[in-house]
Amino acid sequence: MLLQLIRPMKQNKHTRLWNPGPTEVSERILISQSKPMIGHRESTFTDLYKGIIDKLNRFFEITNYHTYVHTASGSIWMDISARNLVRDKALSTTCGSFSERMYQTIGSCGKTVDKMAVEWGKATKPEQILDALSKDKYDAFTVVHNETSTGVRNPTVEIGKQVKKEYPDIMYIIDAVSSLGGDFILPEKNQADLIFASTQKAFALPPGLSMAFISPEAFEKAKTLPGRGQYTDLVALLEYYGKKNQTPSTPAISLLYSLDIQLDAMLAEGHNNIAKRHEDMAKYTRSWVEKHGMKMFAEKGYESITVSIVENTLGKSVADLNKELRKRKLTISNGYSQLKEKTFRIGHMGSWTVSELKELLWHIEEIWQL
Amino acid sequence: MLLQLIRPMKQNKHTRLWNPGPTEVSERILISQSKPMIGHRESTFTDLYKGIIDKLNRFFEITNYHTYVHTASGSIWMDISARNLVRDKALSTTCGSFSERMYQTIGSCGKTVDKMAVEWGKATKPEQILDALSKDKYDAFTVVHNETSTGVRNPTVEIGKQVKKEYPDIMYIIDAVSSLGGDFILPEKNQADLIFASTQKAFALPPGLSMAFISPEAFEKAKTLPGRGQYTDLVALLEYYGKKNQTPSTPAISLLYSLDIQLDAMLAEGHNNIAKRHEDMAKYTRSWVEKHGMKMFAEKGYESITVSIVENTLGKSVADLNKELRKRKLTISNGYSQLKEKTFRIGHMGSWTVSELKELLWHIEEIWQL
Repeated sequence: MLLQLIRPMKQNKHTRLWNPGPTEVSERILISQSKPMIGHRESTFTDLYKGIIDKLNRFFEITNYHTYVHTASGSIWMDISARNLVRDKALSTTCGSFSERMYQTIGSCGKTVDKMAVEWGKATKPEQILDALSKDKYDAFTVVHNETSTGVRNPTVEIGKQVKKEYPDIMYIIDAVSSLGGDFILPEKNQADLIFASTQKAFALPPGLSMAFISPEAFEKAKTLPGRGQYTDLVALLEYYGKKNQTPSTPAISLLYSLDIQLDAMLAEGHNNIAKRHEDMAKYTRSWVEKHGMKMFAEKGYESITVSIVENTLGKSVADLNKELRKRKLTISNGYSQLKEKTFRIGHMGSWTVSELKELLWHIEEIWQL
Repeated sequence: MLLQLIRPMKQNKHTRLWNPGPTEVSERILISQSKPMIGHRESTFTDLYKGIIDKLNRFFEITNYHTYVHTASGSIWMDISARNLVRDKALSTTCGSFSERMYQTIGSCGKTVDKMAVEWGKATKPEQILDALSKDKYDAFTVVHNETSTGVRNPTVEIGKQVKKEYPDIMYIIDAVSSLGGDFILPEKNQADLIFASTQKAFALPPGLSMAFISPEAFEKAKTLPGRGQYTDLVALLEYYGKKNQTPSTPAISLLYSLDIQLDAMLAEGHNNIAKRHEDMAKYTRSWVEKHGMKMFAEKGYESITVSIVENTLGKSVADLNKELRKRKLTISNGYSQLKEKTFRIGHMGSWTVSELKELLWHIEEIWQL
C-alpha cells in the first residue's frame, strides 16, 4: 500500500526540465500539493492565503504595495493590465515574443496601443522609452523584464527611475514572468505600478497560479476605468482580499499549498542568495558558450540570469540534441517561434544549482562532441 | 523516509467536506497531482490534454461542440461569455447569488444587460424567459442550471427546447458549475451555446480548472466580436487547441493529472449511474428533512440533486451545528449570503454515497437531538 502511494511520485526516472518553464519541481513540493482540501471560506484557508501574501511581501520587501495571487497563468495579468490601467492609450515596448504578446493583448482588449519595438536580442533602454513617450499622450507603458524568447534582461530599475521621474502619472507595467523569484527584483524599487509573474518559472512550482504587486496609484486608477470585468477586475480582487483575506472565486488550493511551502524555502535561502545562485549559473553558461565558440543571443551586459539563449553558431541540430538529451532524462528548449534551430534555450532557474548545470552542459558536450 | 512522504496525505484526521464546493477529494486523486512536471509544448502534454478533452467528449456525448479546459475558476467563463457572446444586449435570468454574479459580470464587462429575476427559491421557467425575450431585442440570455445559493435546479433542457425553437440565434449560456459531472447534463441536448463548470464541485477534484462546451454557432459568433482580450478570448483558445491540441498559456499540469484520472473513474461508473447516485442522496436528504419537520428551500419539483438547501425552520444555530460537526471532523455549509442562518446547505456531490450521507445526517440528528 505504501509503495503504491509512493509510486506516482518516484522521480528517479523522470525527465528533468531545463526549459524556461515549466521548470523542475522538487519531490517535496510535488507532494505538498496532496494535502486534503479545505473550504475557501474557512479560517484555515484565510490563514493559508494571508500567510502566502505576507511571505511574498516579506520576500519582496513590500511596504505599501498591494499583493495578489490569482488562479490563472501569468498571461491573465496582461489582460488585467489592459483592462484596469490603460484608459486612453498605451505604449508597449517589444523585444521578443512575450513582450509582443503584451502588445497584442492590449489591442485585443479594445484599447489603443502603440508599439515601440527594438531588434530581437537587444535591450529596451530608458532613453528610447522617454523618446517614444514624448511623441504622444500615453497613460500606461509596458516593459518585459526578462524576455524568455531572446534571453534579454531589460534595465527595469533604471527605466523606472528615469521614466517615472519624467512621467509620474503614466502607469508602468512590468512582465517579470520568467525572472521574479530568481533574479533580484523589488517591485517598489522598480517603481512598477503593476509587476507580475507566475509560479512555474523561477519559483520552481507547478503552473496554475500567478502573482502581481500593484502600486496604490494603480489601484486608485483602476477604480475609475469602466469594463474591467469580474475575473480580471483588479479592484474587486484587491478589495475582497482587503476585507476578507480571501479570494472572490474558489482558488487552486493544492497549488497554494505548494506556494506556501516554497516561500518558506525561499525566505530561508534569501532573495540575494537566490539571485547570486542564478547569476552564477548564468555566468557559467556564458563562459561555457564562449569556450566552445558559440555566442549569446542577448546584447552584452543585458543577458538574463534565469534563461540563457544561445545562438546556434555551430549549426548542429537542436532537435536532435534534445532527442539525445531525452534519452539521458534531460531536456532543454529549442529557440522560441522564429528563433527555432537558430538558438537553443537553457532555463537555469528555480531550484537548479551550478553543479547540476555543469552536469547538463557536460552531456551537451558529449553529444555534440565539443 | 516513506512515512515522511506519506504524512501530508494522511486523511484519517482531516475534516470531510459536505460543502457545495470545494468538495471532498479522495486520497487517490490528491496523490495523482504529485507526478513530475512535463513541458507544455511536448507530446507527453499533448497526449494528456487531448486525452482529457476526448474523455470529456465521451462522457458528455459531444458530437459537434467544442470542448475546452481552462486554468481558472469557473467564474472566468462568465467573463468569457460576456466578452465573446454578448454583442448588443443580454437577458440575464437570476434566482440567487450565482446567477446574480453572471448578471453583474456582463455589466462589468461593459455590455448592456437586463435582469429577469424570480423570487429566491423559485425556478426559472421557459415561458418566463420567452415572455422576457419578446419585450426587447437580445442576442444572448443566461440561466444557471443549479443555483448553489438556493438549491434550485432550473429546467435547462426544457428552456433550450422552447426558447431556441423560437429564437435560434440568441446565444444560450448556462452556468452548470455546481451540477455538471454529478447531475445528468448533455450540453448538446440542452441546446446550450456555452455551458461551463469547474472541477471542485461534482467532479470531486481540487479547484483551479474549469471547462466549457461551446456550440459551433457560438464559436462563429465570437469571431465577430471585438475586445475579447487574450486570456478570455474563446476564439484564440479553441483555435490553438484545434491546431496544436495544447493551450496558448501554460496550464495547471498537476490539476490536469487529477482531472485525467477522475474522468477514467467517471467513465467507468457511467454518467447515468453517477446521476442516479446523486438523485438517491438528494431524495434521502429530502425525506430526512420532511421527517424532522423541516422544509426544502427550493420550489417543489425543482430541487437540486447535488446540493440540498434546507430551511432552518427548527430555529437552531447553524454556526453552532457546524462547530459540533467539526469536532467530529465533518463540515456542511451555512446559508449563502443573505440566507445565512435562515438555511443550511449540504453538498452531497462528487464521490459521496448514500451510506456516507446517512452517517452525516445521523451526526446532525445527534447534535440537534432530533
